[in-house]
Amino acid sequence: MSNLRQDPTTKEWVIIAPRRAQRPHARPDGGPRPLPSRDPGCPFCPGNEDRTPPEILRVGDERGWRIRVVPNLFPAVDPAASPTRDGDGVFGRMEGLGAHEVIIESPRHDARFDEMSDGEVEEVVGVWRERYAALERQPWARSVVLFKNFGPAAGTSLVHIHSQVIAIPVYAPEDLRRHEVAVRYFDDTGRSVYDDLREAERRAGDRVVAEAGSMLAVAPFASRGPFETWILPSRHRSSFARADDAELADLARVLREVLRALRDAAGDPDYNVVVASGSVGDRDPAHFTWHVRILPRLATAAGFEMGSGMSINPVAPEDAATQLRDSLQRARQHAG
Amino acid sequence: MSNLRQDPTTKEWVIIAPRRAQRPHARPDGGPRPLPSRDPGCPFCPGNEDRTPPEILRVGDERGWRIRVVPNLFPAVDPAASPTRDGDGVFGRMEGLGAHEVIIESPRHDARFDEMSDGEVEEVVGVWRERYAALERQPWARSVVLFKNFGPAAGTSLVHIHSQVIAIPVYAPEDLRRHEVAVRYFDDTGRSVYDDLREAERRAGDRVVAEAGSMLAVAPFASRGPFETWILPSRHRSSFARADDAELADLARVLREVLRALRDAAGDPDYNVVVASGSVGDRDPAHFTWHVRILPRLATAAGFEMGSGMSINPVAPEDAATQLRDSLQRARQHAG
Repeated sequence: MSNLRQDPTTKEWVIIAPRRAQRPHARPDGGPRPLPSRDPGCPFCPGNEDRTPPEILRVGDERGWRIRVVPNLFPAVDPAASPTRDGDGVFGRMEGLGAHEVIIESPRHDARFDEMSDGEVEEVVGVWRERYAALERQPWARSVVLFKNFGPAAGTSLVHIHSQVIAIPVYAPEDLRRHEVAVRYFDDTGRSVYDDLREAERRAGDRVVAEAGSMLAVAPFASRGPFETWILPSRHRSSFARADDAELADLARVLREVLRALRDAAGDPDYNVVVASGSVGDRDPAHFTWHVRILPRLATAAGFEMGSGMSINPVAPEDAATQLRDSLQRARQHAG
Repeated sequence: MSNLRQDPTTKEWVIIAPRRAQRPHARPDGGPRPLPSRDPGCPFCPGNEDRTPPEILRVGDERGWRIRVVPNLFPAVDPAASPTRDGDGVFGRMEGLGAHEVIIESPRHDARFDEMSDGEVEEVVGVWRERYAALERQPWARSVVLFKNFGPAAGTSLVHIHSQVIAIPVYAPEDLRRHEVAVRYFDDTGRSVYDDLREAERRAGDRVVAEAGSMLAVAPFASRGPFETWILPSRHRSSFARADDAELADLARVLREVLRALRDAAGDPDYNVVVASGSVGDRDPAHFTWHVRILPRLATAAGFEMGSGMSINPVAPEDAATQLRDSLQRARQHAG
């Protein structure tokens, strides 16, 4: 029988209905993988640097770059726009103020996190933190959204490995919801709901996927989709900008291992990675803990999800965690 | 330049960014259309009635049925489950209580709303109202979600024309959010935000798609996706169960016309239709007005949407409305 579960961080219910599918189908789109190591037509490949807007940041030396950050050539928002509201009546409106950057995470066209070294992924998440912190400091910024689209089902348009960061002058609905729930929880208990959730998941154990130093990876109790995985730090910090170097090293390792396990266990699915962070402008409030969410795109949202905002998840997170742990175990035995 | 718009019914912001795509791509999946008029393997086709659970409702006569309602063979929720909460700590949990029905809307395998007669669609939306009302009366029901999935990108698994209705014992997040915003708006103004929105859209005019008697179809100001269209009744009623026969006749006509125009203007896209209705159990409160939303699936939600809960819409609703009106105009000239 299916069951209903409530996410303590959003208060939203999810239907866990394992009977509805034996196993989700990975990559029904048949997008092209593997890729060539270099594509002369790719604007993110070395040699084509003039096809992107001028660099914001470059990691590398005289022999070449390892990571580049550039403005998005087709930005959804523009830092030159006005912050003035000009709507009237029921129509709230403002210009498309914001920043939209692309983080090109390797010169190699076919690079992917699960095949990179721990050091390479660590350098990338260091750049994530740097750009997150820089955009968080914009006076108009209210939400900063850092995300990776991997594969066409996850909304990617260019296959060369990259992430994006968008800063906007309004509160993103997900940020606002999590903030409100976390403030309420803190007011009731004096603790961050994320810290309590992490400890409850550690105690329950059956949804734990991996642990490395300061980072715990779990298939959360109220997973909205198959193989959803969260990476939660053990040290309380609200903003991702304040994660320290040791935490980023642990994050890089767990992220790489979980993505490798996901590839094995779920048939190389397309996925998104998003960084959830506390409210911009609040100096490390006690109610929120930054974390990373891995969201495999193994199910299509249908009319029920569109109409209700609720998800039907055909894979119980306990089953997903078992499969991911088994894959991790095999990978470690293989490496050892 | 892009602009940010706030939906007055959810208070959520949307980025309208027309520069990001000249035109969305319809049906990248290449799902099979047209269909045969009968498929011997289809459990919803005449002759295969024994392949569905026993009928809840049948419209028809001795010569055959025109509409059937059956329980979903693979239900996400079950009316026999317990309403007791059994979670503990941060883990809120209950059995998968609910009802999950399928409305088979024609015996013809290849029927589609935009090719049916006004009378046929009217009979279908009458059955929608009947099942909505029946499930709303379940003592455990908190949200009733009625929806249609058209095409694989909209999450359909069986192509034979059908809708579904799911009743659940918790408040669906979208219902709860709209309810809270509508109560707040009523408390501030003494009016339903939907009634004010309808009149503001009628006055603005540039997003109006069609009008038929009591129903106004608009591409809403803060559309979350390309060619999103809402159908709003002029008479205030909170629950869809209380729509009257004349309203259903108008709804059927506008729904059929808009779907036909959508097919012409946007390249026969996959879409969802959802019925939004006031809270179950409240007897026609003044703050909510039922309405129907048509949600074409022309864009893929990417990491930004997954992480922020915000949408980037590449087609301004004013442009979508112009194209839909032009298509409607051509269809009427053709018919006349």
